[in-house]
Amino acid sequence: MTATDGRAATALADAIEARDAAAFVHVGDRSDATMRYLAGPALPDRPSAFLLSAAGERLLCPPPGAASAAREAFDGTVVGAGSIDGHAAGERAAAVLAEREATGTVLATATIPHAAALYLERAGYEVASTDALDAARATKTEAEIERIRAVQTAAAAGVERAEAVLANAERREGIGGDADADAAALIHGGDALTTASLRREVNAALARAGVDPAGNTLVAAGAAWRDPARGGDDPIRADDPVLVDLAPRDAAGYHGRLARTFVVDTDGGWDRRAHLAVTRAREAGLAELEAGTPASRVHEETAAEIVAYGFDAVGDGRTGGTRALGHGAGLARREAPWLTGTSELEPGHVVALAPTVFDAGEGGGVRIADLAVITEKGYELLGEYRTSLSPTVD
Amino acid sequence: MTATDGRAATALADAIEARDAAAFVHVGDRSDATMRYLAGPALPDRPSAFLLSAAGERLLCPPPGAASAAREAFDGTVVGAGSIDGHAAGERAAAVLAEREATGTVLATATIPHAAALYLERAGYEVASTDALDAARATKTEAEIERIRAVQTAAAAGVERAEAVLANAERREGIGGDADADAAALIHGGDALTTASLRREVNAALARAGVDPAGNTLVAAGAAWRDPARGGDDPIRADDPVLVDLAPRDAAGYHGRLARTFVVDTDGGWDRRAHLAVTRAREAGLAELEAGTPASRVHEETAAEIVAYGFDAVGDGRTGGTRALGHGAGLARREAPWLTGTSELEPGHVVALAPTVFDAGEGGGVRIADLAVITEKGYELLGEYRTSLSPTVD
Repeated sequence: MTATDGRAATALADAIEARDAAAFVHVGDRSDATMRYLAGPALPDRPSAFLLSAAGERLLCPPPGAASAAREAFDGTVVGAGSIDGHAAGERAAAVLAEREATGTVLATATIPHAAALYLERAGYEVASTDALDAARATKTEAEIERIRAVQTAAAAGVERAEAVLANAERREGIGGDADADAAALIHGGDALTTASLRREVNAALARAGVDPAGNTLVAAGAAWRDPARGGDDPIRADDPVLVDLAPRDAAGYHGRLARTFVVDTDGGWDRRAHLAVTRAREAGLAELEAGTPASRVHEETAAEIVAYGFDAVGDGRTGGTRALGHGAGLARREAPWLTGTSELEPGHVVALAPTVFDAGEGGGVRIADLAVITEKGYELLGEYRTSLSPTVD
Repeated sequence: MTATDGRAATALADAIEARDAAAFVHVGDRSDATMRYLAGPALPDRPSAFLLSAAGERLLCPPPGAASAAREAFDGTVVGAGSIDGHAAGERAAAVLAEREATGTVLATATIPHAAALYLERAGYEVASTDALDAARATKTEAEIERIRAVQTAAAAGVERAEAVLANAERREGIGGDADADAAALIHGGDALTTASLRREVNAALARAGVDPAGNTLVAAGAAWRDPARGGDDPIRADDPVLVDLAPRDAAGYHGRLARTFVVDTDGGWDRRAHLAVTRAREAGLAELEAGTPASRVHEETAAEIVAYGFDAVGDGRTGGTRALGHGAGLARREAPWLTGTSELEPGHVVALAPTVFDAGEGGGVRIADLAVITEKGYELLGEYRTSLSPTVD
């Protein structure tokens, strides 16, 4: 499946016509989400060039030696290294255009490598940037939504595994030598349960469910909440809010996003209040999800609800305060629509809502994140997972 | 850890001095290996700019809203969005240079986004490409080699899991309704063992070992050998050569590479001969690994050994023939040194050897892949794993 068969090809054809351009060109390797969008997931590691001609021809110039693999993976025309000159992808793209006697303006993404654009300019083309692809990519096709829904189902298996490990963990009291001050440590399989061991359990569950953790699995407890993306390996205490925040990726490159926060032994105080605020903020954000709503309003309403529950206004998120993070998701973990933007939500937009409260003084935070797709009638959650703070086993 | 503290910073400083440039600039997001090399793995999803000034100052311009996270992750100077103008990373890089009253030439990678280079050019800088970073990155530091060695240990756990599943699989005869023609199907956990179910087992083992499958796990049997990267879900037969080819990634972004091929019930014919050829080709390739050897010679000697065992010369790899693929490995799954290149191997180069025989008519192939590091005295294998064709359990 390549998404360019539909929406992207139309958007690019419109842009080519509007600018009276000869072609659209992009250059990127397998790790480049734009290239995956244009040419599918089974690309070579080294950079390829993608071209859409004004006549509607879709072309791929793979790196030398990768032509036969590209023919298996790409449903348009593959131009092998033998038939055109040049080692670099941009050089080969220029050669293909010359062979087709194209002249004038060539549209390119803003992220095309500078060296590739220079090859086109040296070959006499005027390179003009287009953002036609960004808007097209924000609006998912049915096939893309199905993929993301399936990733969310796999993500739920990861959260479920974390919840089961936490719910079944044994408690060992007074680890710190001061039974009054220290909450119980958690024991799993005879060893102290740590954020690293829980992360491994979650990632193994994701892999078993058929998706790739993609380096995006955040498991944080206690002080590590300050910067969950740093990873780390901290013992998990029974009163720690434990963040499990996942954005796995399927074989075609589509990402999910699902986050829950659990406390094994909550004292019913700060973490309960934070959890209530985040849960209500989630509901407030979801209630705003409909076509025509300015994307920024979703963020604002979510943040306002958190503040209404008595938490600090949105700060830098490092020492405390609230965050009502939101963004689109798809071939990139985070992509348009950005919920801080002024553009309006449209049917087919997939958005992540991730309301968060964090307080270094309280030793942690609470985050709940979900993906939803904007529909003609409102929105639909992609994947369902309970929002309870206490881990339970089905 | 950022590698720029040492080798990369020196290489860039030399390039800046040689060109009398004002600075080096790169722009990229978290998925960009060059950016991870320059600024570490904990980068924002949206593009950041990295700058090294002629005075030796290392600067990072993260995207708006990500400054505090960047300060946790980056050990140089972080220039927040509040103190400079511009939304785009290239625009902010230009503003930082202007603030420091830099003029003249700015060095950039060939892969800096075209839009970022345009911002620099519009601000009056001449943008010149440098490949100083590529050469620096090919030569690993001790810390990088230790990381890759650890990834290889985790990769071995993945191969070991595949070998155990295959060795313990039950056989079910005559699945195809024709017991004479069909080899036994393999059964695991009561279900038919397929390439997809084995892939999931392997990926779960990788995750448990603390590395990310990174979308690079190839498990192929039978006809899927034609294009192992396509994935797929085929029943595994007892006489199928099963490829298990892994390139997992650690939290810092470093890749391993380990591949083995197993046949549960080999008839001692074609697959034994192919396995012998590939094993000897591996030995021939390893014997060439020493500082000063032209990289291409490793490839040539490996391929020659395969041909000497009576297999077809190197073809396009789709319908048959042999391949003796080789490349470097590090922050990218495949990177310099390329074993088809004319440059010489140097101490600190990490190279993957992946001799392969494939024959569509025989219904499969054999590949064995390992990583080695070039040392002052020769080479050292990173990770060890037996090369036997029949799966066994320790």
